[in-house]
Parts: sequence; C-alpha cells; structure tokens
Amino acid sequence: MATSTSSPLKKPVTLACIQLASGADKTANLSHARDKVLEAAKGGAQIIVLPECFNSPYGCDYFPSYAETLLPSPPSKDQSPSYHALSSMAAEANAYLVGGSIPEADPDLASKKYYNTSLIFGPDGKLLASHRKVHLFDIDIPGKITFRESDVLSPGNKVTLVDLPEYGKIAVAICYDVRFPELATIAARKGCFALIYPGAFNTTTGPLHWRLQGQARAMDNQLYVAMCSPARDTTATYHAWGHSLITDPMATVLVEAEEKEAIVSWKLDGARIEETRKGIPLSGQRRFDVYPDISEGKVRFDEDNVPS
Amino acid sequence: MATSTSSPLKKPVTLACIQLASGADKTANLSHARDKVLEAAKGGAQIIVLPECFNSPYGCDYFPSYAETLLPSPPSKDQSPSYHALSSMAAEANAYLVGGSIPEADPDLASKKYYNTSLIFGPDGKLLASHRKVHLFDIDIPGKITFRESDVLSPGNKVTLVDLPEYGKIAVAICYDVRFPELATIAARKGCFALIYPGAFNTTTGPLHWRLQGQARAMDNQLYVAMCSPARDTTATYHAWGHSLITDPMATVLVEAEEKEAIVSWKLDGARIEETRKGIPLSGQRRFDVYPDISEGKVRFDEDNVPS
Repeated sequence: MATSTSSPLKKPVTLACIQLASGADKTANLSHARDKVLEAAKGGAQIIVLPECFNSPYGCDYFPSYAETLLPSPPSKDQSPSYHALSSMAAEANAYLVGGSIPEADPDLASKKYYNTSLIFGPDGKLLASHRKVHLFDIDIPGKITFRESDVLSPGNKVTLVDLPEYGKIAVAICYDVRFPELATIAARKGCFALIYPGAFNTTTGPLHWRLQGQARAMDNQLYVAMCSPARDTTATYHAWGHSLITDPMATVLVEAEEKEAIVSWKLDGARIEETRKGIPLSGQRRFDVYPDISEGKVRFDEDNVPS
Repeated sequence: MATSTSSPLKKPVTLACIQLASGADKTANLSHARDKVLEAAKGGAQIIVLPECFNSPYGCDYFPSYAETLLPSPPSKDQSPSYHALSSMAAEANAYLVGGSIPEADPDLASKKYYNTSLIFGPDGKLLASHRKVHLFDIDIPGKITFRESDVLSPGNKVTLVDLPEYGKIAVAICYDVRFPELATIAARKGCFALIYPGAFNTTTGPLHWRLQGQARAMDNQLYVAMCSPARDTTATYHAWGHSLITDPMATVLVEAEEKEAIVSWKLDGARIEETRKGIPLSGQRRFDVYPDISEGKVRFDEDNVPS
C-alpha cells in the first residue's frame, strides 16, 4: 500500500497561543492584544493565535453591540477598528496572525445578521483569509450550561484552509467547529500541517472535552493541533475554560496553560509529522473501497461575501 | 435544526469485557474463556466480549498454526473447535457473545489466506455475524515496535453492524480498525448504541492511544464504546496493553482494568445516550451542505464468503 510520508510543514516554525484576558473595553482589549502579540513575537513566534472573541466579552447579549462590518473588504478604520488593529499587529510582529475571532455585522444592517469571524493576516499585514464559525454553539446541559449562538449569529459555510507560503497550509476553525471531525479530516487530507482552533469552551464541557478534542483531532489526522482560549474571567457572564494547548501529531499535549492569562508556544517540526506518519502509516491504510473518502466528496472551500 | 434524540438502546443492558489471560494451549484457552464467560453472565452481563486472538498467542508466527476454517458455515467441530466452544458458551451463558477474534484459515488451503475474525453469537448459540479485521496492523516505530499483520493476514472488506433484537444495534471491529474513525461514524449514524472493539494494543501505543481512541470515538459519536484486551503476558512475544474499558456517550471512562486478568462491566442505559445527544445535539448540527455525510456514501456492509 502506498504511504505518503513527506511532511506538509516545509520548515520548523514556532507557534504561540495567547490566552488573552479580555474585558468589556474593546479599545483596551485591542491594545492589550497588541502587547501580547508583540511579546509572543519577541519570544520567537512566527505564527501567533488569539482566542475566540478576543476583542469583547463572549455572549449573545454582546455580539451585536461589539460587531463590526468587514465588507466590502478592506473595511475602513471606522467600520472595523479590530481589522486594522490585527493587520498592524501582524505587520509589527512580522508574523502570521490567526486573529482569534470577533463579532462581525452584515453590512446590510437591516438583515440583523451577525457572524463569529476569524481574520487571518500575513506578516505584511495583509488579510489572507477569514473563517466564519460554521457550527454555531447551541447546547443545553440542564443545570450546567445553556447557550444558543444561533439566536443571534448566522453561520459560515466553508472549510477554511490557509497557505502560509514559507511553511505550508493550516486550517482555521472556531471552537464548537472542533466537535465536527469532518473539518479536521478534510484539512489533513488536503495537506495541512496544523489545525488551529480559537475557542472558548466553558467550565462544564472544558474539563470533559477540551483536551480530548485536541488530542483526538491530532491522533486521527497525525498533525499538530493548537487550541487557543481566552483566560477565565469569573466576573464575566461566561466562564471560559482556558487551558490553551498545543498537541503534537502523536496526540501528546506539548504545552497547556492553566486558566489565567498566558502564552503557550512550541516549535512545530515537520520531521515529527513525518516520523508519526511513517510509524503508523494511516494514510496508506485507509480502506476507501469499504467507505468513502470524505475529502474527495463535495466540500465547500469558498463562499461569496466573506472578508478576503 | 432537527435533532434526533430517541435512544438507539431500547432497554438497559449490562456489558462485560473479559480481559482474558490466554496462553499457547488452545484447548485450555477455550476452557478458560468458558469459565470467565459464565462468571460474567453470573454477574449479570447480557453482552459479553472476549479479546482479540483470545484462543491463541498474538503474532504472525502463530496465526497459521492456530487458524481454523469457518466456511462453509457452520463448520464442523473438527474444522473449528473455537466456533463450537463460542456457540456453546453463548448458549450456556444465555448472553450475546462478541467472541473476540480468532485466526481464520481460508478453506482453500492452497491460497494460504488467513484472517483475523470475530464471531458474534446470540443467546441461543447461533452465529449472528462475523467481522474480519478490515485494517491490518502494520506499524513500524523504530526501537519500539514493528509488526506486519499483512505479511500473513488478508483483510476483511466490510463495516459490521449486528442487531441484537431486544436491545438495538452494535458495531464490531477489531483493534487497529479503531484508528479509522469512518467505521465508528458510520455505525453511529446507522443507529448503533455501542461500538465494540476486541483489541490488543501494545505497551508502546497502548499508553499513548488506547484510552484516547475509546474516548474519541465515544465523544464524536455520542454512544458507548467497549474495548476488550487480553491480559498482559510478559512471557509472550507480544505484550498486550490490557486496560480493557467502557466509556459512556460523554467519553467518560466508566470502568478500566489494569494489565492483569479481569472482568470489567457496566450497565449501559439508553437514557444516557439520549441525555448526551439532547444536551450537545451534534446530529442536527452537522453541516452536510459544507461537507458530505460519509454514512450516505457508498459503504460496504456485506461481503461474500464470510462466516454468517
């Protein structure tokens, strides 16, 4: 059976997840994010990840008031201070920046449509891609947590792969998206070296599934996984789990934060992906004569009217 | 979005995994398996699982000499003492029996084809289904473990779902099959309440991935998972990891053995599946407009010339 063991990561790259402590003041959040992004870059990071809703509190009550319009792209500074702050941070840091996510408002304000949107910038400050959360976070665990993003948000409609020319491809998805393994499977089979999830699990599902999600995606797809949470703020209405982490392609957790603000980083190495895939050569052993290869089916990688 | 929350398990059922200590003597192994199956039944188990290669040592050198022909089905007692022992155990125990696996020889001896085959019997002692390992265990982790089942074995070619009329459907697959999430995804979407894996991970990949595999399949598919290993025999050429376990649909490990011989059992409850799927309603949230539903693609559930 054919085995593919060439690495999808062209050269080693240091990835940092910033477990940011955000509050209600958007301007302060953007300024604080800048400080931490520059700190991560100073520490050697060439790919820097911010958490879900890094510029605002997380919650359906907050999305509309914090939302910014991103279209037509690029937006003006008035339309989207967060876009411009992220673009500047990426350029100042001279790093790729997966800008966590921000609440996005549809330019047709009458539509009252909002999205949970990740903007990914290159080291030149140019927008490379955007990902709107595809799977909205609607759960109801009685006595523990009830949340319905779909009361306020509209979903994105694509799988997001981003090419970082010197390194290779990454996949970006947001939080609850991680529970749908199809995105990870497709990303891996299309050649990504890492899956990057800005996310904000909570103190109910966090201890049960946050780490397990990261490890499961890594194990099944034999690539690096980074999950970047906000720091926990017990004065906020939503208590994020924290525990930002990076796993290797064998599903070993390389580094994991606690609940406080922190930067966790690791030098990702393509040799580790190759070694894993050579040792346990899943890609040549799959039985696509018994079941289909989802990545060869109809997958949406593009969508009209998204920031790009 | 539509959510399906009716349970695939019709009534509670106690499942037991027998972490059997086997040796080189097939007759002794069958007799010992009988004792433990009856012990599990006495303890209340209505579904009993034996480990991979429970009637023989595990290893490519052993498969041909321990192999039995199972076709045409049913085989004679001379052809397959293990088939008849399992059938009798199931009837004596008045329980469903997932008979771990045994080395099977193709009836055309000149073909020198062998399989790693699980036989599943009903409480009346009748064969319900069989599963030949679909993904052969070929790995090479330098300095740790090298194994090539495909040097000796031929693979099965189907996904195996088995209906237990009073309870509902289970899926059976063997060991390395667990690394290929497609089987689990298809089984869950076709209505199984449990995934049952006789398996024999080793002391290299066991601590890294055995538990994680069980938890990942449970978490992503929101059903029970049982993984049944042989006990570890450090005098054998292959050192099984042991750690037979059962996880619930939230991926919590309910019970887990150590490495010695043991029976682990749990009463599976459909209400727990319902509660999990109602709380985190993945089945109604999947985005089959963005990526395909693998269970709706071309899947092989049947194969000619397998024991049935």
